[in-house]
Amino acid sequence: MKIDETPWTREEFTQKLRMEEKKYHIFHPFHLAMREGKLSKAQIQGWVLNRFYYQINLPCKDAAILSNCPDRMVRRKWLQRILDQDGDASSEGGIDTWVHLAKACGISEENLWSLHSVVPGVKFAVDAYVHFARTAPWYEAACSSLTELFAPKIHQQRLDTWPEHYPWVDPSGLQYFRDRIKKANRDVEQGLSITLQYFKTRQQQERAIEILNFKLNVLWSMLDAVSLAYPFKMDEHAHEQH
Amino acid sequence: MKIDETPWTREEFTQKLRMEEKKYHIFHPFHLAMREGKLSKAQIQGWVLNRFYYQINLPCKDAAILSNCPDRMVRRKWLQRILDQDGDASSEGGIDTWVHLAKACGISEENLWSLHSVVPGVKFAVDAYVHFARTAPWYEAACSSLTELFAPKIHQQRLDTWPEHYPWVDPSGLQYFRDRIKKANRDVEQGLSITLQYFKTRQQQERAIEILNFKLNVLWSMLDAVSLAYPFKMDEHAHEQH
Repeated sequence: MKIDETPWTREEFTQKLRMEEKKYHIFHPFHLAMREGKLSKAQIQGWVLNRFYYQINLPCKDAAILSNCPDRMVRRKWLQRILDQDGDASSEGGIDTWVHLAKACGISEENLWSLHSVVPGVKFAVDAYVHFARTAPWYEAACSSLTELFAPKIHQQRLDTWPEHYPWVDPSGLQYFRDRIKKANRDVEQGLSITLQYFKTRQQQERAIEILNFKLNVLWSMLDAVSLAYPFKMDEHAHEQH
Repeated sequence: MKIDETPWTREEFTQKLRMEEKKYHIFHPFHLAMREGKLSKAQIQGWVLNRFYYQINLPCKDAAILSNCPDRMVRRKWLQRILDQDGDASSEGGIDTWVHLAKACGISEENLWSLHSVVPGVKFAVDAYVHFARTAPWYEAACSSLTELFAPKIHQQRLDTWPEHYPWVDPSGLQYFRDRIKKANRDVEQGLSITLQYFKTRQQQERAIEILNFKLNVLWSMLDAVSLAYPFKMDEHAHEQH
């Protein structure tokens, strides 16, 4: 059997990348339950506490990509991600707005920063992502950021559903999601342009799909670990029968 | 024999660090000759071409430190070094001003960026520095930047002596040296403050001295390699006798 080694066109390749959306954590049972208002306060809090570990590691991940990248023009642009997440003296970063989200969910800043609630599965998944950024070629690490293709929708979904389903969350705390919609669109442009430039042969293009899947698995695993740590309660009816 | 394990006071420790200046490359024969106007055009050009490899690696070195640093407030400040060297859309960075220096010395931009003139000894030394930043604890890597304690003087010396000794260098190209005097003073403040904070015991303090020596060796080795690649000519008299 002859293997087709013809490279995909830019459009085909972009389409192939977009098709991986079906494995995005927006379809994870925990996230479906979040959207449908089925999560308890403890589950929402558990998610916010655990995802904070991801948030605080993003600047280190992006600095690793920067450190491995010999192209100064790419570095200049990529640096913006670190600024966006860490913030600076004049403007808050994503870490700050996540802290606001946590407070809006009734989590103390001390509890959040202690990382006591971060479960091993979340830690391993996030650490694997940072390790990949440190050790893989910089353009592979840049490619792994492409789950941002799918991020605007997940943030919008949270903005659309949280106020109704989780009215105990102070809505001013949702700024993180709002900020990320705009920034994800800008970031994905750079990530996609690098990917189209550096993954040219069919084999390389397939490698890009594989890398995107690695990152999809990171996000999915995090929700697996969170959902096991904060299990769904049996529904009320089942509970009554019990 | 009892080993003295009493930690140095902040003042003693700072003094011990400053005393390492005696091994700074300002005292290297190649740099002494530079100051005294004894370098040929080929030697000056060779130095500029080779030191460019150090310049373009600094952002990667600083991003590595950032990547390994879990302290967001340190990261926010350290990021400035990357900005200073890479520049951004609105302002030139140290790499740009080094490019201007090269042009002022009659080196084409193509030749400079090709890195063809970078000799192995320079490459090994710079790579060792970047590798250290990637693999050492972030505060050790930060400490290794402390040769900046001695940098303002070396830049000032170049500003003071080049126009007289090397009049063929367009003086507008010396901006890099001017810029670094101010920035080195600011940067060293952060580097010193981290070092004083993270190296507390006598053993740690001695480790800091060792790290500073490693970096002094990087700079010294670079000049060793450059001076061998662009050797001093025999003086005219010796040449006549020959």
